[in-house]
Amino acid sequence: VKLILLSGGSGKRLWPLSNDVRSKQFLKILPAPQGGQESMVQRIWRQLERAGLHETAHLVSQKAQFDMISSQLGEEVPIIVEPERRDTFAAIALAAVYLHDVVGSSRDEVVTVMPVDSYVEDGYFETLLHLAQTMRDGAAQLGLIGALPTYPSAKYGYIIPQAESSPSTDGSLAVSHFIEKPSEEAAATLIAEQQALWNCGVFAFRLGYMLDVLTAAGIPLQHATFLEQYGQLPKNSFDYEVVEKCARITVVPYTGYWKDLGTWNTLTEEMGTTLIGKGLLAEQCVNTHLINELDIPILLLGLTDTVVTASPDGILVADKTASQKLKNHVSQFTQRPMFEERRWGSYRVLDFVKQSDGTEVLTKRIRISAGKNLSYQYHHRRSEVWTVISGNGEMMVDGVVFPVYPGKVIEIPVGSRHGIRAASELEFIEVQMGSQLIEEDIIRLAMTWEEALTKWSTGG
Amino acid sequence: VKLILLSGGSGKRLWPLSNDVRSKQFLKILPAPQGGQESMVQRIWRQLERAGLHETAHLVSQKAQFDMISSQLGEEVPIIVEPERRDTFAAIALAAVYLHDVVGSSRDEVVTVMPVDSYVEDGYFETLLHLAQTMRDGAAQLGLIGALPTYPSAKYGYIIPQAESSPSTDGSLAVSHFIEKPSEEAAATLIAEQQALWNCGVFAFRLGYMLDVLTAAGIPLQHATFLEQYGQLPKNSFDYEVVEKCARITVVPYTGYWKDLGTWNTLTEEMGTTLIGKGLLAEQCVNTHLINELDIPILLLGLTDTVVTASPDGILVADKTASQKLKNHVSQFTQRPMFEERRWGSYRVLDFVKQSDGTEVLTKRIRISAGKNLSYQYHHRRSEVWTVISGNGEMMVDGVVFPVYPGKVIEIPVGSRHGIRAASELEFIEVQMGSQLIEEDIIRLAMTWEEALTKWSTGG
Repeated sequence: VKLILLSGGSGKRLWPLSNDVRSKQFLKILPAPQGGQESMVQRIWRQLERAGLHETAHLVSQKAQFDMISSQLGEEVPIIVEPERRDTFAAIALAAVYLHDVVGSSRDEVVTVMPVDSYVEDGYFETLLHLAQTMRDGAAQLGLIGALPTYPSAKYGYIIPQAESSPSTDGSLAVSHFIEKPSEEAAATLIAEQQALWNCGVFAFRLGYMLDVLTAAGIPLQHATFLEQYGQLPKNSFDYEVVEKCARITVVPYTGYWKDLGTWNTLTEEMGTTLIGKGLLAEQCVNTHLINELDIPILLLGLTDTVVTASPDGILVADKTASQKLKNHVSQFTQRPMFEERRWGSYRVLDFVKQSDGTEVLTKRIRISAGKNLSYQYHHRRSEVWTVISGNGEMMVDGVVFPVYPGKVIEIPVGSRHGIRAASELEFIEVQMGSQLIEEDIIRLAMTWEEALTKWSTGG
Repeated sequence: VKLILLSGGSGKRLWPLSNDVRSKQFLKILPAPQGGQESMVQRIWRQLERAGLHETAHLVSQKAQFDMISSQLGEEVPIIVEPERRDTFAAIALAAVYLHDVVGSSRDEVVTVMPVDSYVEDGYFETLLHLAQTMRDGAAQLGLIGALPTYPSAKYGYIIPQAESSPSTDGSLAVSHFIEKPSEEAAATLIAEQQALWNCGVFAFRLGYMLDVLTAAGIPLQHATFLEQYGQLPKNSFDYEVVEKCARITVVPYTGYWKDLGTWNTLTEEMGTTLIGKGLLAEQCVNTHLINELDIPILLLGLTDTVVTASPDGILVADKTASQKLKNHVSQFTQRPMFEERRWGSYRVLDFVKQSDGTEVLTKRIRISAGKNLSYQYHHRRSEVWTVISGNGEMMVDGVVFPVYPGKVIEIPVGSRHGIRAASELEFIEVQMGSQLIEEDIIRLAMTWEEALTKWSTGG
């Protein structure tokens, strides 16, 4: 069995903590067993490890999430990189082609695809293994997991089993059809009269089945060629392109806890605390949650059914029911990311000023982990001034290598080549000045420090 | 007539916008006639100008408010400086001694004292003149203004006129006694049965009366001696020390609008808008106000009766009724001021880090107005790095004068003497490093630029 975890996601429904880089699965909001908080992706990876399944798993994600995944799960987690974001059909096709052509999996290998942000109990992973067994032994082309509904939700998709089918010996049911987001009344009827199940977004298939689907659609099975044509793949869901056209689908019921933590309303129910970060809830706050990633303290007084979340990107104060409408309002607040975790550490934007003559000034605090380095790079449109505030390391500017330490100031004019390596964890304040201060204005000459020294050093 | 405006105030009831330096009267929240916002002190000064009374007025304030008053009202407003904060008796005694000994006012001069944060209509100033006339012509020792109550408030003080007294020909009433913050029921009875009035905190007296009170208490009338003994004056209210002991008090009724804007609840009612700063109210917010002094956008969804205020000092989200309890909770959040207006411009703290070895790092953006200068100064416990981001001017470091311009970086080691003068409005990013980064670690060698150049320059 091969497990494929889809790590997609846009940032809008959990603004301001999530953004295009930090999707909801990376937010450290859930209670971690060792205390403190963990993200959805850290939770599911921990559960996979406990179930012994992590060695069969690959993540499918965009390159922009690379640094975040490495930082949260470690650098050895295998990632299949999407060339661009193109919905679930393309992502699952990519995983199938990768397993076939790069990993060399056989056509009989059972592949199970699941969202990386499923919030489930450990029993779920037994159901996953059960599903894989069903796919191996049975005649179904596609296998799903259906959670037993605990209330008639109008927000979920429903799987309707065939009426005449009785459960097979392994407990799986033949699927009749699907109903997306019915009214609460309709959902109640579906559950009571048709044994409808919540669709958990899991898809299992023998690899050969998916390869045949691709071949029938004229899609190449060779990885390199496939990547070249990625931009021409239909931008549709796997449900639309494959599930709805599939004749023999089976569903394995899952009786444990399953929840979509896609809105502040649902996510805060699982926080296990009312406060993360700097702040205080006072004067009888009821069913109210505060998540504060700022250094600025937040005081809540006498609130009911309210969620308050704050990051350098923005601050949300919402009635919990109204928080479900968040997506409609955040587009006007999208701005450059104010905080990012990277492979080499993290940075935070402290200040941004656009002057009347068009000059922009961006002030950042940048942290580089011990042993890590920034690429050797230069910029077309900005100068930089760095003031080291803690830690030690070495720096190279235009080929000249020198040590850096607290208090050291480095001026980097436009076009000047520069890189830095942290011996101990190193922090500096950066003042960027120029036009168009965007992350993309960067020419990387060498990624590793060894390569930078070998190719570009002219001495110390 | 001499008008004395008391500018006192602590910052707790309007946290996080107000703090010990920026008391509530300096918050720019009220709608200005020319558009935009004005502060309480700007509003009352504008009203005084319109009534032709500003030339008779002095402000009494602490030195810490000096820069704020100059910045909001201009540098020519006369200020009587309190050596320290010691409640209203000491402040009013100081004003009396100052008028007597420094200004040379006569004993017959009528002095009218009022809070600088009164929120009133223009008609109020006619009542002030009326009160002064009453004090000049009548036999009362003390004169007050009493606003006609519009509802039985439990938060105000009440003036009870003498039952047998009918209004004198000028409309003033003899005062019987005072009742502070009665219950709403008791207030309703006082209003209906005893013609009680709200105490507006105004005190009028002939200067001679106050000088006699001071003399009787053994307090000197000579300004310099008085200042020396300021710390020994009773730390009590003028009500306690003078009003309650006074035999003949009169009150002039005021029939217009009067309000204490001391809590977020009452202040937001006078904002004239629901939003100041960067943000959005959506999904049917009702009776909800947002004041945002941060650069970070704030989104409010579906809130009712809520006030949200944000500054670099903190963020408050409060049910409006609960906001009256604010004072009990903010003490734990007090920290260094994150934004200050000064005589020479303003600064904003962008970031503060305390490292494990005790080193502190403070990053500020500092703006100096055209033509202004920072004092020539040095520090015992911190080094500074300045990166100029806009404007032009000149700088002197250890006696050496040189020009500064965008992109110029200046390193200032511990103990190094430095000053800067802005030719055009000038901004720079400052990174302070050291132990104990407090505003008080500053030795000023010269305040004006001319003095700095004359005494300390060794050349350019």
